[in-house]
Amino acid sequence: MTGDAVAGVAPGSGSGPVLDPVALLAEIDDVGRAAGGGWSRLVHTDAERTLRDWFTEHATRLGLAVETDRNGNLWAWWGGDLPGADGPGAVLQVGSHLDSVPAGGAYDGPLGVVSALAAVSRLRAEGFTPHRPVVVPVFAEEEGGRFGIACAGSRLMTGALDPARAGALADPDGVTAADAARRVGADPTAWGPEPARLARIGEAVELHVEQGHLPTSGGCRHGALGLAEAGAPLGLLTEIWPHGRWRFDLVGEANHAGTTPLDRRTDPMLVLAEGVLAARRAAERHGVLATVGKVRVDPGAVNAIPSAARFWLDARGADAGAVDAAVADVAAALGTPAVRESWTPVTQFDTGLGARLAAPVRVALAAAGAPVGADGLPLLPSLPSGAGHDAGVLAEAGVPTAMLVVRNPSGISHAPGEHTEDGDVRLGAAALVEIIRDRAGAGWRG
Amino acid sequence: MTGDAVAGVAPGSGSGPVLDPVALLAEIDDVGRAAGGGWSRLVHTDAERTLRDWFTEHATRLGLAVETDRNGNLWAWWGGDLPGADGPGAVLQVGSHLDSVPAGGAYDGPLGVVSALAAVSRLRAEGFTPHRPVVVPVFAEEEGGRFGIACAGSRLMTGALDPARAGALADPDGVTAADAARRVGADPTAWGPEPARLARIGEAVELHVEQGHLPTSGGCRHGALGLAEAGAPLGLLTEIWPHGRWRFDLVGEANHAGTTPLDRRTDPMLVLAEGVLAARRAAERHGVLATVGKVRVDPGAVNAIPSAARFWLDARGADAGAVDAAVADVAAALGTPAVRESWTPVTQFDTGLGARLAAPVRVALAAAGAPVGADGLPLLPSLPSGAGHDAGVLAEAGVPTAMLVVRNPSGISHAPGEHTEDGDVRLGAAALVEIIRDRAGAGWRG
Repeated sequence: MTGDAVAGVAPGSGSGPVLDPVALLAEIDDVGRAAGGGWSRLVHTDAERTLRDWFTEHATRLGLAVETDRNGNLWAWWGGDLPGADGPGAVLQVGSHLDSVPAGGAYDGPLGVVSALAAVSRLRAEGFTPHRPVVVPVFAEEEGGRFGIACAGSRLMTGALDPARAGALADPDGVTAADAARRVGADPTAWGPEPARLARIGEAVELHVEQGHLPTSGGCRHGALGLAEAGAPLGLLTEIWPHGRWRFDLVGEANHAGTTPLDRRTDPMLVLAEGVLAARRAAERHGVLATVGKVRVDPGAVNAIPSAARFWLDARGADAGAVDAAVADVAAALGTPAVRESWTPVTQFDTGLGARLAAPVRVALAAAGAPVGADGLPLLPSLPSGAGHDAGVLAEAGVPTAMLVVRNPSGISHAPGEHTEDGDVRLGAAALVEIIRDRAGAGWRG
Repeated sequence: MTGDAVAGVAPGSGSGPVLDPVALLAEIDDVGRAAGGGWSRLVHTDAERTLRDWFTEHATRLGLAVETDRNGNLWAWWGGDLPGADGPGAVLQVGSHLDSVPAGGAYDGPLGVVSALAAVSRLRAEGFTPHRPVVVPVFAEEEGGRFGIACAGSRLMTGALDPARAGALADPDGVTAADAARRVGADPTAWGPEPARLARIGEAVELHVEQGHLPTSGGCRHGALGLAEAGAPLGLLTEIWPHGRWRFDLVGEANHAGTTPLDRRTDPMLVLAEGVLAARRAAERHGVLATVGKVRVDPGAVNAIPSAARFWLDARGADAGAVDAAVADVAAALGTPAVRESWTPVTQFDTGLGARLAAPVRVALAAAGAPVGADGLPLLPSLPSGAGHDAGVLAEAGVPTAMLVVRNPSGISHAPGEHTEDGDVRLGAAALVEIIRDRAGAGWRG
């Protein structure tokens, strides 16, 4: 952190500084830097607490009223006390998260938060006054990087995650989520659904760095893989692919590596290896994604045939049936059942909200001279997401939700190479300016 | 531990109790019991310290003088002050180790120690007086189960392991071997070779539980796999196979499992899987053993394509060239160099000492009514070892060394299923009685 310096102050006709999202990212660039590269900002760690305090300080300076809800999510309110602000659908939400996976990238989460702060600062400087409450949430434990369940903060809020189950989750050191929360002064016994808070959210927009290069439509070239190929700096997500996680438990017979003839072994490592390769073949066969990123081998000694091995299969795709078929192929190849640890069906983002956002986003794109399509309008491709998000949790809970993604030429996600050019960062924030101006302006019900 | 009860006291014509090796094993049966099964008695842990104290107590009660050498090995002396006891080759050594691999078996190490204690107690009870010093050593960190280098105590003594390198080794929690030693009151700055101690050892015998089922000669059936198939309760090792450990470092490109098209991945897990299967094929092709028991995958998240993966290959066999060829095949299959972490050439046990031991061992076998061969003599097969031992370290340092192995019908080693029948345990101790009587009796120079 570069201390208390206010990033990118510029004069406006309203009140307060204009924050530059690029400068905001630079302020937190050294928070949670992992020794081997990347950023580790796991929930309830010093790095994550530092980011929460930093967010609270900036939001407070902007005149926003910051509260922490019972599930540990932060909410920074602009106009939270407007008449009718408690009514159903009254609130426009524009936020994301600040936690990361271990050794992750700098943009996943923070980009949405700094863009929202920058947009609010710009509108305040211009003298804009919201006609509905605008809230910038920072959801807790979006990545599940510490306790294994992604979007824990938003899932607790919607009721999709049982508080007792969440509290009992343990990190790799055996610390439970409940204990970790208590250590930072939170009260895990207060965790649970907040239907009234949820009912107030009329429109939720999450801005996020592009992850991977998935097929787009509406760019320069139909089916282009990712925004860079599509020639567009911004895109709108249509859906989150159905995705799940399966575990394969392989039983072996522990024995000495130096004394056991090959034909007298029951070596689960061989089955694990077959499983990894079978998963890849099945993914190709069924047109889905399948990944083995985590394994466990017991006892894990160089000179011991393992007594047991486990691997986890992450599988996703546009078609749920194809995902299931790929997993079934792996199980059949190994003769071992796939234990399903999680499954999330397809999540559709709100097409009406997406359509309402296209106009203000194109205002920002046009102002920046972004490429236009055959129709003369700035390109704004649609694309699916292979990754889950808090926005998806809200969409499943019935909140009209949309996601705006910012071009990531490398496609890399959850790793240090994740990147967005400074110009695109500023364009994303500018799009949020226009979205808030449009969706929280005088004509927002229109 | 069952407390201070003396195991299996029986009257003799000499002095002191006769210890039953089966009862001695029972005394320590609950020391270091691992939660998931097996015994974990890693160096400098409470379990291992308990066993060292227990050994010292028993040896002291038997009238042996116990010392700890500068490398942490225990030495229990019987007749250590006899005339000429300091001369080259004066000492008969009969011992083993007490530490274990994580979640290992109950016999590997302790069987040799309890058998030596029982043999000494029997001879003392009979009134036998040694004509040369007999020493029962307990070598430290034989398994390398904590710091990764096997036979650390004996290697430090012979000079085969550099003390600075040994001290810098770290356990999985990052504790160095030097720090761990200091915490139990040892002085790692004292570690180093003891040529004078080594020169005194004229004959070294290690009794050990059989590991695996390797081809035997001299049993009922030539080439029988293991002592059980050979129909013999005891055997003599001829050699330790050449063996080594290689590491393969595989570099990937970290990325999100849900957003990266299959054809844009650099996934080192796929290479790891190919490597595991290639190692098995290469082992079959070249007639050696090859095992992958340890892997490391970074960052190890279910939803992340790994940035890196490593696996370790343990390879051994009767022929060093065949072992090398198998490792080279794996490297060629992956297009990745094999990083050799350790290599131990073939270790031959002393054929002269083996021949001298056969007669007293057969005395014990005959007394027990063990099966005889076509020549009317009790069967005493020869077999190789696929595992390293302190005895091998001493043999490499020029000490005439032999190993006596006790039948293990399961063949299982380094795992809870490792087993020796009580009758065979007692037969092994009886063989040590006859060995000591013969090799430390009045005619030992003969």
